[in-house]
Amino acid sequence: MGKSTPLKVALLGCGVVGSQVARQLLAQAEDLRARIGRPLELVGIAVSHLDKERPGIDRELLTDDALALASRGDVDLVIELMGGIEPARTLLLAAIKAGSSVITANKALLAEDGPTIYSAAEEAGVDVYFEAAVAGAIPIVRPLRESLVGDEVTTVMGIVNGTTNFILDKMTTDGADFADVLAEAQRLGFAEADPTADVEGFDAAAKAAILASLAFHSRVKLADVTREGITAVTASDIEAAKEMGCVIKLLARCALSPDGTISVGVHPTMVPLAHPLASIPGAYNAIFIESRNAGRLMFMGKGAGGSPTASAVLGDLVTAARNRVRGARGPGESTYSARTITEAGLERSRYYASLTVHDEPGVLAQVAATFAQHGVSLQAVRQESVGEQARLGVMTHLAMHREVSGAIADLDRMPTVRPGISLMRVEGD
Amino acid sequence: MGKSTPLKVALLGCGVVGSQVARQLLAQAEDLRARIGRPLELVGIAVSHLDKERPGIDRELLTDDALALASRGDVDLVIELMGGIEPARTLLLAAIKAGSSVITANKALLAEDGPTIYSAAEEAGVDVYFEAAVAGAIPIVRPLRESLVGDEVTTVMGIVNGTTNFILDKMTTDGADFADVLAEAQRLGFAEADPTADVEGFDAAAKAAILASLAFHSRVKLADVTREGITAVTASDIEAAKEMGCVIKLLARCALSPDGTISVGVHPTMVPLAHPLASIPGAYNAIFIESRNAGRLMFMGKGAGGSPTASAVLGDLVTAARNRVRGARGPGESTYSARTITEAGLERSRYYASLTVHDEPGVLAQVAATFAQHGVSLQAVRQESVGEQARLGVMTHLAMHREVSGAIADLDRMPTVRPGISLMRVEGD
Repeated sequence: MGKSTPLKVALLGCGVVGSQVARQLLAQAEDLRARIGRPLELVGIAVSHLDKERPGIDRELLTDDALALASRGDVDLVIELMGGIEPARTLLLAAIKAGSSVITANKALLAEDGPTIYSAAEEAGVDVYFEAAVAGAIPIVRPLRESLVGDEVTTVMGIVNGTTNFILDKMTTDGADFADVLAEAQRLGFAEADPTADVEGFDAAAKAAILASLAFHSRVKLADVTREGITAVTASDIEAAKEMGCVIKLLARCALSPDGTISVGVHPTMVPLAHPLASIPGAYNAIFIESRNAGRLMFMGKGAGGSPTASAVLGDLVTAARNRVRGARGPGESTYSARTITEAGLERSRYYASLTVHDEPGVLAQVAATFAQHGVSLQAVRQESVGEQARLGVMTHLAMHREVSGAIADLDRMPTVRPGISLMRVEGD
Repeated sequence: MGKSTPLKVALLGCGVVGSQVARQLLAQAEDLRARIGRPLELVGIAVSHLDKERPGIDRELLTDDALALASRGDVDLVIELMGGIEPARTLLLAAIKAGSSVITANKALLAEDGPTIYSAAEEAGVDVYFEAAVAGAIPIVRPLRESLVGDEVTTVMGIVNGTTNFILDKMTTDGADFADVLAEAQRLGFAEADPTADVEGFDAAAKAAILASLAFHSRVKLADVTREGITAVTASDIEAAKEMGCVIKLLARCALSPDGTISVGVHPTMVPLAHPLASIPGAYNAIFIESRNAGRLMFMGKGAGGSPTASAVLGDLVTAARNRVRGARGPGESTYSARTITEAGLERSRYYASLTVHDEPGVLAQVAATFAQHGVSLQAVRQESVGEQARLGVMTHLAMHREVSGAIADLDRMPTVRPGISLMRVEGD
């Protein structure tokens, strides 16, 4: 094909990100052509509502038959920005079968059923790029797939959900309770009317599954991720974190366990102030990596929003388009390590337990002995008397979750301990 | 070729990084084979001294005829880790001509004469990868070449030299003078016996040229970079920075000017404490990017050392090897923007000037008027009396360097102003 023959692009979905991508394709046409070596031509946009007002988008391009658009044999690149499992999966598979390379930001689908997409692409000899699926504009998929591919990653963790980071930030700054800050975030448009996917950690868990798959060259699915949201985080948890020189962040954490398995979880976590992740402000995402040779790396940037996500999509689009022009292929799925998931309860972390006890002689010794019986050694204990009761704050050394839970269950049964022990992970060792 | 046919690798140079790469090739052989799809075979290592002790390296592989090794027609991948312009350039060109893809960490050569290497590779149809040439283990070349290729970068800046960051950090923490901290850094092995390349900013300037070329799709050479080292930074500059809520960092800064040209410079710069670059500790490098769509991004990691640099080299090696296996090609040089360098003196920054004046009525007004005459507006002025003299600290708004220098030259000629005005850039606007 000549240098002036356009590469055809189809867009599935035209919401905040999709419309931004469509507009950029027009606005940057000359730049994109220079970078790719051939022009791009947007040949169609699949939408649910043909009649909706879409400033700057040519109505002629719109269609409500997404399957027909995705299945056209003459489209080089299909961008899927609808989200959700279906019909996105069916449409992506149709596009791949028709010979198109695909770009997607669909974390839910990739975390649920990525291998189906990757295998279909491998078979059809086309590319799948998905930089926008994790941490918006931050280039993290490409570094994991390519830059660190000659190294051994031992930990990937990060703040990958802006809504919960905003809420926890606000709770820390204002000393406010979760419910109040959530209501404010909804008013400001930082949280959805139904905030479940964010505040219960589902969104972060999908991203954790994708990150773990890439970092550890293994297949990790959403169901493999232990998940805990931030709805139970209280103002007094935030206060306790402050006293320990920490802030609470919702961390997605993927780590190689000593037995060669991988633990993947999303949990509210106390992060020491000296850790680079502690100071990541509300609207930002950050990913922290540790690897054998490279050591510690951190990537920070905007995790959501139309323009940042569109930047990641367009970067993928240019890369996939260049591959087409040069007859090349990007990296496919890498699963050669085939690591399994750490057995539930065997994952290791430091923990912080907050409990209220009757302030009588011997209680602290009893509490300490209970942890010791379960093989958990303590790093620090704080005690504060409040009338006839005492508040205890107990920081453990690295311990298995099963051991710590065992100790907590025993403590919960003691008559001297008040109901409602709060337990939280603490980053570091 | 079958899946078991090895890809042949030649290594030019076997110092700290080279020997680490050689050892990793052996230690990670199985992993690398899985990632690439074919095994790698190290067929030779060019060294200057055949007799030197090299633990873990097979003596049979050593040769002192680098040109013969680089020119072998049967080598798939040549890794150049010798540094310097010659003979590295001749060897890389010979390897490319012989049909090998090349991986290099040679910032000096790429900043001086990169286009010669890139053009030769383009003509021969082979890859050039150089992630390790800028900021060690931090994946920055790949994000700029690929992830952000659908966006428009407006600023790339960073801390890209660990030695100077260590020295400035120490000066800030201890209030010590440059010469003392340099001597300590040399004792600790953080600075070379001849520290010129680091402390005079040559190393950072080479990296700035490479970053600017990538970010702005243009050819930028070392000679295009305005350069100022840290040898003139005094303890009182550090103190003045603290008073302004800043720390001094040696920043490499590449920015799109309003007229569409690009300014590329390395300067000691006051960085406000709230800026993410302000808190990057001694041994780390960090790159900060601003782009139209992605917004602000930051990348942090180890900028030097055998293992981190080897991680970057091996990532490139795997990528280039995969390309060989799949018959693919990586991105080549991108120069379509062909931007020119901002005319000297027209680059814009905020500035901080420190001067001592006779403490008499009207002096401050005189100083302020001088800046105004040159079109420089002031953001903040601090005055402190010391006996019969006063110390003035003047922070400007964004101004052209030519205007600020003009004002400083006039002030220097005033009888009320003492000789020795210090002038420093301030990040932000």
